[in-house]
Amino acid sequence: MKATAVACANQGLIKYWGKTDEALRVPSNPSISVCLAALTTRTTVEFSDRLEHDELTLDHRSSTDPRVFQHLDRIRELARSSQRARVVSENGFPPGVGFASSASGFAALTVAGAAAAGLDLTPSALSRLARLGSGSASRSVPGGFAELLAEDDTRSIAVRLAGPDDLDFRTLAVGVAETEKKVPSSAGMRITTRTSPFFPARLEYLVPALERMRAALRARNPVEVARLAEVDTLNMHATMLTSDPPLVYWSGATLEVIRAVLDARASGIAVYFSVDAGENVFVNGRASDVAAARERLRAVRGVSSLVESAPGGPARLDPQPLF
Amino acid sequence: MKATAVACANQGLIKYWGKTDEALRVPSNPSISVCLAALTTRTTVEFSDRLEHDELTLDHRSSTDPRVFQHLDRIRELARSSQRARVVSENGFPPGVGFASSASGFAALTVAGAAAAGLDLTPSALSRLARLGSGSASRSVPGGFAELLAEDDTRSIAVRLAGPDDLDFRTLAVGVAETEKKVPSSAGMRITTRTSPFFPARLEYLVPALERMRAALRARNPVEVARLAEVDTLNMHATMLTSDPPLVYWSGATLEVIRAVLDARASGIAVYFSVDAGENVFVNGRASDVAAARERLRAVRGVSSLVESAPGGPARLDPQPLF
Repeated sequence: MKATAVACANQGLIKYWGKTDEALRVPSNPSISVCLAALTTRTTVEFSDRLEHDELTLDHRSSTDPRVFQHLDRIRELARSSQRARVVSENGFPPGVGFASSASGFAALTVAGAAAAGLDLTPSALSRLARLGSGSASRSVPGGFAELLAEDDTRSIAVRLAGPDDLDFRTLAVGVAETEKKVPSSAGMRITTRTSPFFPARLEYLVPALERMRAALRARNPVEVARLAEVDTLNMHATMLTSDPPLVYWSGATLEVIRAVLDARASGIAVYFSVDAGENVFVNGRASDVAAARERLRAVRGVSSLVESAPGGPARLDPQPLF
Repeated sequence: MKATAVACANQGLIKYWGKTDEALRVPSNPSISVCLAALTTRTTVEFSDRLEHDELTLDHRSSTDPRVFQHLDRIRELARSSQRARVVSENGFPPGVGFASSASGFAALTVAGAAAAGLDLTPSALSRLARLGSGSASRSVPGGFAELLAEDDTRSIAVRLAGPDDLDFRTLAVGVAETEKKVPSSAGMRITTRTSPFFPARLEYLVPALERMRAALRARNPVEVARLAEVDTLNMHATMLTSDPPLVYWSGATLEVIRAVLDARASGIAVYFSVDAGENVFVNGRASDVAAARERLRAVRGVSSLVESAPGGPARLDPQPLF
């Protein structure tokens, strides 16, 4: 009744911003992401009759995050169990920089929790279950380059479009954040879908954008994948900025990294930026181009961490428990 | 055959970004602006038989800006003259910070040039003529709060919506720019109108946005005017960012000023930002609120100048020549 799993964070390449069902986290549009091998979460879950309450330790600190306890309830319901759980989770992320750990965290919690509860779920069922905890977590279940479909509850699952080694694709995760983001994603999505005059045009744009990204992955074209992710970043942030109230997730350092990427490109290095709902920047391209841009990015004022990452694999059970 | 004029720069409140006729500078949408009394251009024009070539001195330096010579040709055509001109122009702007001087410059050139050529033009004809030199210059002709209509060539003129003293409205021009903007406005507009998936939605949004701004001016409501200008800034920059190639006019310092404005607002100071096609930021509101925010904005890293300005008057002839 104890299991451990490791899952990677992922970066939205065609991003997900908006839900058609908030409770079930059914997204407004399909999204495509790449898992990041260098940013992982390890989680051990144990269900036991000896526990009176659920217990959660996150990065060596006791936590009472209600989203985790709700997720344990989902697992218990599937397993028809009433046992309480002990959960210990650790993020292998640069500390204090604010890279989002909810995708890797809920993917690892789902895989470890299901195994600890004795459930034998299909990959699709695991991906759906992870989505109920955090939308983007569903894409960390299959790993590699994955698409989260936007259908109904049971069919909104992530499927793999390409394996982690199928493309010469690298990501530099550039940490600049000094603060927690002020508007959590769920609240932000609600504001944007209801108030941005550009949200309907984003949904229209996404139909050909998704098809282009799938085609670029089929063609194993890392530069085109990186380029389309930059286009989508700007499209999504444009809907955030035009929300009421405006959602300004970028900081000055974010903009300076963006400009450094544009400058690198103007000098012939084929790198492209991508920014999720926060201040940090991902810089994508072929391994050789990302390496060529690295020192320029390190020199940007406000950059506090640089982590280079290859595409990562699926969420997986692991023999090494955290307790 | 010699005349001098002074004109104010202006800040777009509902901005103009896109033309339906590039040669005649007929805008895609009506725009509304406020003139800035503290940012002016003074220009002296003399037509003379003794000159063999047009001569232009701009801020004490000889210049060969072809747009100025083309504008002199327009004036000569109206006056049926073939005399060459001497033009001396000086900007009373903070030096090297990159506030746009084309609006005040072409408004002053138009008013001084027409008078020097002996033309007796109506205010509408002056506004149209200024528009042919620089679209936004047409709004500096009537001064105060003005709307540039978007009709055909002869009817796309600026009309005054409110006088400079009708509202308790102040602007802090926050200089942060270190460099000339990389994509000139005319080229940028062409890229956006042709490639942004949000440009049609911007044109749709503008219909009620313009009506709201006119209503706020009629109601003499400075806070609503400032708020609507911020909404429009984000809307316009969203179409720039989603252009192909992306038009990123902001720098890190721009973003930090934007965040400082949002923070000021969160602490109860009713100030709002506005950004034209460049890095500098205008901060708008009632005089008392702008004064209350001033020290916070001065403290932002990258701010190199602060100029507080009341609304300005019309472009006018002035007795004091520059030569």
